[in-house]
Amino acid sequence: MTTLWEKDQDAENPNVNLAPLTACVDDNDHLQIGGCSVQSLVEQHGSPLYIVDERTVRQSCQAYRAALSKYYPGKSQLFYASKAHCSLAVVSLVYSCGAGVDVVSDGELMTCIRANIPGKDIIYHGNNKSLEEVQLGVEHGVTFVLDNWHELNLIQQVTEKLGKTANVCVRLTPGIECHTHEYVQTGHLDSKFGFDPDQVDELLQRLLGLQERIELVGFHGHIGSQIFELQPHRDLATFMVGAVLKSRKMGFTTVRDLNMGGGLGIRYVPTDDPPNIDAWVRTVCEAVVHEFSKCGSDSGCDSSLPRLICEPGRSIVGTSSVTAYRIGSTKSVPGVRQYVSVDGGMSDNPRPITYESSYTAVLCRSATAPGVDDVRVTGKHCEEGDILLRNVSLPEHQADDVLVMLASGAYHMSMASNYNRVMRPATVLLTGDGSVDVIQRRETYDDILQRDVIPERLAKACAT
Amino acid sequence: MTTLWEKDQDAENPNVNLAPLTACVDDNDHLQIGGCSVQSLVEQHGSPLYIVDERTVRQSCQAYRAALSKYYPGKSQLFYASKAHCSLAVVSLVYSCGAGVDVVSDGELMTCIRANIPGKDIIYHGNNKSLEEVQLGVEHGVTFVLDNWHELNLIQQVTEKLGKTANVCVRLTPGIECHTHEYVQTGHLDSKFGFDPDQVDELLQRLLGLQERIELVGFHGHIGSQIFELQPHRDLATFMVGAVLKSRKMGFTTVRDLNMGGGLGIRYVPTDDPPNIDAWVRTVCEAVVHEFSKCGSDSGCDSSLPRLICEPGRSIVGTSSVTAYRIGSTKSVPGVRQYVSVDGGMSDNPRPITYESSYTAVLCRSATAPGVDDVRVTGKHCEEGDILLRNVSLPEHQADDVLVMLASGAYHMSMASNYNRVMRPATVLLTGDGSVDVIQRRETYDDILQRDVIPERLAKACAT
Repeated sequence: MTTLWEKDQDAENPNVNLAPLTACVDDNDHLQIGGCSVQSLVEQHGSPLYIVDERTVRQSCQAYRAALSKYYPGKSQLFYASKAHCSLAVVSLVYSCGAGVDVVSDGELMTCIRANIPGKDIIYHGNNKSLEEVQLGVEHGVTFVLDNWHELNLIQQVTEKLGKTANVCVRLTPGIECHTHEYVQTGHLDSKFGFDPDQVDELLQRLLGLQERIELVGFHGHIGSQIFELQPHRDLATFMVGAVLKSRKMGFTTVRDLNMGGGLGIRYVPTDDPPNIDAWVRTVCEAVVHEFSKCGSDSGCDSSLPRLICEPGRSIVGTSSVTAYRIGSTKSVPGVRQYVSVDGGMSDNPRPITYESSYTAVLCRSATAPGVDDVRVTGKHCEEGDILLRNVSLPEHQADDVLVMLASGAYHMSMASNYNRVMRPATVLLTGDGSVDVIQRRETYDDILQRDVIPERLAKACAT
Repeated sequence: MTTLWEKDQDAENPNVNLAPLTACVDDNDHLQIGGCSVQSLVEQHGSPLYIVDERTVRQSCQAYRAALSKYYPGKSQLFYASKAHCSLAVVSLVYSCGAGVDVVSDGELMTCIRANIPGKDIIYHGNNKSLEEVQLGVEHGVTFVLDNWHELNLIQQVTEKLGKTANVCVRLTPGIECHTHEYVQTGHLDSKFGFDPDQVDELLQRLLGLQERIELVGFHGHIGSQIFELQPHRDLATFMVGAVLKSRKMGFTTVRDLNMGGGLGIRYVPTDDPPNIDAWVRTVCEAVVHEFSKCGSDSGCDSSLPRLICEPGRSIVGTSSVTAYRIGSTKSVPGVRQYVSVDGGMSDNPRPITYESSYTAVLCRSATAPGVDDVRVTGKHCEEGDILLRNVSLPEHQADDVLVMLASGAYHMSMASNYNRVMRPATVLLTGDGSVDVIQRRETYDDILQRDVIPERLAKACAT
C-alpha cells in the first residue's frame, strides 16, 4: 500500500498528492499536518474537524501562476472558483496568493466584499442571477460572466437605474462535451449554462448597442474536467478565439480576456491519476497560442493575445484539507461485513451519497500501519446510505480513535448541511509552523435553532 | 393530465395525494393553499419559500391514530420521525396532535427540549450516539433505541455517573430486507443499525444484570419502505414477538413496547401508488395481533399485547408542503431542450441530485392549465447536476412567474445546505383559515457569515 506522505509527493503540484504537503508521521506513527499533531487538534477543537493546510493552498496557487507565466506569452490571471470552499479566510488566503475570486451568488460575493476584495478582482458566474444579485454586482464593480438573455436584461436595467457601467464576459457553450477521457463535438451543448453557438451573432449585435453601459471584456468557455489531451482544448480554443476575433472585427475594442474555465481534478484514492497543474495549464496555453498563431496574418483583425484566465477550485483546495472524525460504535454482521461509525457523515461530506465519491482514510495514531480489517465507515445519520467509505482497510482501531479522510478541501464545508440537526464542524487553518487559526467556528445549539419561530398557540399546546 | 386538487383527493389519508388537502384554484386558475394565494405568499415572504399546510399534517397524524385504534386491540402510540422536518413549530404541531417525537441527534433532541416536549414522549434513535448525546438524553428522560454495544456502555457509564436510570428499547435487525415490492429473509441484515439476531441472547443476559439502572421497555424493528403485503410484516412480527416473549421468559417484567418502525411512502408524481395510511397501519397491526394470538396458550409466558408504536416521518409531513420558486432565466438549446431556471435548487432540495427523485410542478397562475412546453427545471447553483425536474410539461410561463413543487415537506428543509452560500428559505405554516405563521425565518448574509473568522494577517493582505 502507498503511504501517503512519502518524499515522492509532488512538491510542485499538490493536486496529484493524496495528502497535504506538510503531512508526515512522527516517531510514534502519529499523523502530523502543518507541524501539528492531528490528535491534539481534535482534542482541542473537537470533531468532526475540517483541517486546512495553508502551504498546500499557497503552493497550488503558485503552481498555476508559474505555469501560466511559463507557457503563455501574454498576460494571464488565476481566479479561484470559491464554490469549492468559500469562507472569509479562504478567499482572503487565495487572494493574498495573487488569485482573483470567482463567485456564483450574492452570498459568495458578500463573502468577498466583507473580505475587502475589490470588484475588479471578482468574476460573477451563475445561470440565474436575480435582480438583487445583479445590483450588488454592479455596485461592487465585478465582471459578470454573462450567461443568458435574462441576465443581460437585468444588467441593462440595473446599470441604467444606478447610472453605472458593468463589465461582461460572455459565456459560450462551445459544443464540446468532455467526460472522463473522451470528448465529442456537438453543434449544441445540452447545458443550462451560457449562450448557444447559434446565438452569438445576435448577442454581439445587441451588445454593440449597449456599449455605453455594458462593456464586453471577453469570452468564457469551459471544457469539463480531467481532460488532458491537446485536441479538445484546441477545438475549444478554435471556437473561443473565433468569438474573440469576430467581436473585434465588429468593432469591440474592449475584448481583452479569454477565460478558459477550470475543472482540473485531484487525487482522492491512489488509483486516481489526474494531470498535474503544470501539465493542464500547458495544454490550455498551447491550444490558445496555437490558435492565435494561425490568424496572425488575418488582415484587419486585431489578433493580439488576450489575457488568459483560468479558474480552478477543486485543484486549489482539494488536497490541502482533511476531515478528522472520532470513531464511535462498531458493528459486526457475521459473514457480511464490519461497520465502523464516526461522529459525522453525510452532513459534513455529502459527496459519497451524492456522487458515489471515493476517499482515502488514515488512522491518526497508526498512520502508516498496514490495514488488518476491511470495514465500511458510516456516519451517524439516520439513513442507511450515510456511508463515507464503502470498503477500506484499517489498522487496529477502537472507540475514540481519530480517523482522517484525506482530500476533503473541496465541496465538503461548502456543501455541508444540518441534516438531523447535526451541527456543522469547525475549520482550522494550519500555517505550517505549528500555529493554528480557527477560521470557522463550530455550530452550536443556538445556531441551529436561531431561525425557528414557534407560534404561541403551538407553544401553549406543548406547555400543557 | 390529472389536476391535483380535485375532489377525488383522499381526505382521510393525505399521503396518497399529490397536493396539500387545502390546495385549490380560484376563479383565475391561481393556486391557493390554506386559504392563501400562493402568489401573495411569495410576494410577502420572498422565494424560495417552503409552505406547510397545517391541516394536512393534522389529518395525517389523525389518520395514523385512528387506524391504530381501529386495528389494534391494545394500547398504541404514534411517534413522528422528526428527521423528515425538524423545527420548533413542526415538532410542537405534531405533539399537539397526540404524537410523540423521534429524534436521532442532540440537535433534534434540543429542538424538542426547547419546545417543552417531555422526555417520556421522546424516542432517541441513532447508530452512533456520543457520550454528550447520551448524557443529554439521560438527563431529559428519553427512551433510547439501543442500537449497539458501544451505546450500552455509554448509557451504563452515564446513568451511574448521574445516579439516574434510562429506558431502552432494543433495535434488532430482523434479517428481513425489503426494497420496492420484493423482500428477502436473510440470516443477517447488512445494516449499520441495530443488533444482529445472533447477539440477542448475549444482550439480554447483559441487560439482566443492569436492571437497576437500565430498564428494557421493548424492542424496535423496521422492515423498510413501501411494503404493503402482509407476509413480510408477519415475518417481522414473528421475529419481534419472539424477542418480546423471550425477554419476558427471562424475567424482564418491564417489556411493554413493540416499535414496528415507519417507512410508509407518499405520492410524488401521479404514477406513484403508495399504500394509504389506513392500509399500512392495518397490515402492521394484523401481523402483530396474529403473532400474539398464536402464543396465547404458551404456558408460563406473559403474552399480553405490548403497546404498539409506529414512527412515520415522510407520510406525516411530505404532502403537507410545497416549495414555491420564482422563474428566472430560460434557455433554448435548439433541437435538444428548453431550460427554465428557478431561484433555488440543490441547496433547498438535494433530493433530486442525491436520489434522482421525481416531483410534480404547478405554475401558480395557471394551476390547472395544460402544459405546452416540455422543459427541464434547473436551480441556480454552479453545477450542471442541479436539476429539480428533468422533464416536465409547463403552461406558458415567463420570468418572475411562481412555480411550485409539490410534496416537498420531507427531507427538504431538513437536508438543506448553504451550497454556493445561497441562503436557506423561510418556512410558513398555513393554519387553513388564511392566516400565516412564519415558523422559520429566511437566512441573511449575517447568518451565513457569522461563523467565519478571518485571521488578522490575512485580513491585512486583502486590505492593502
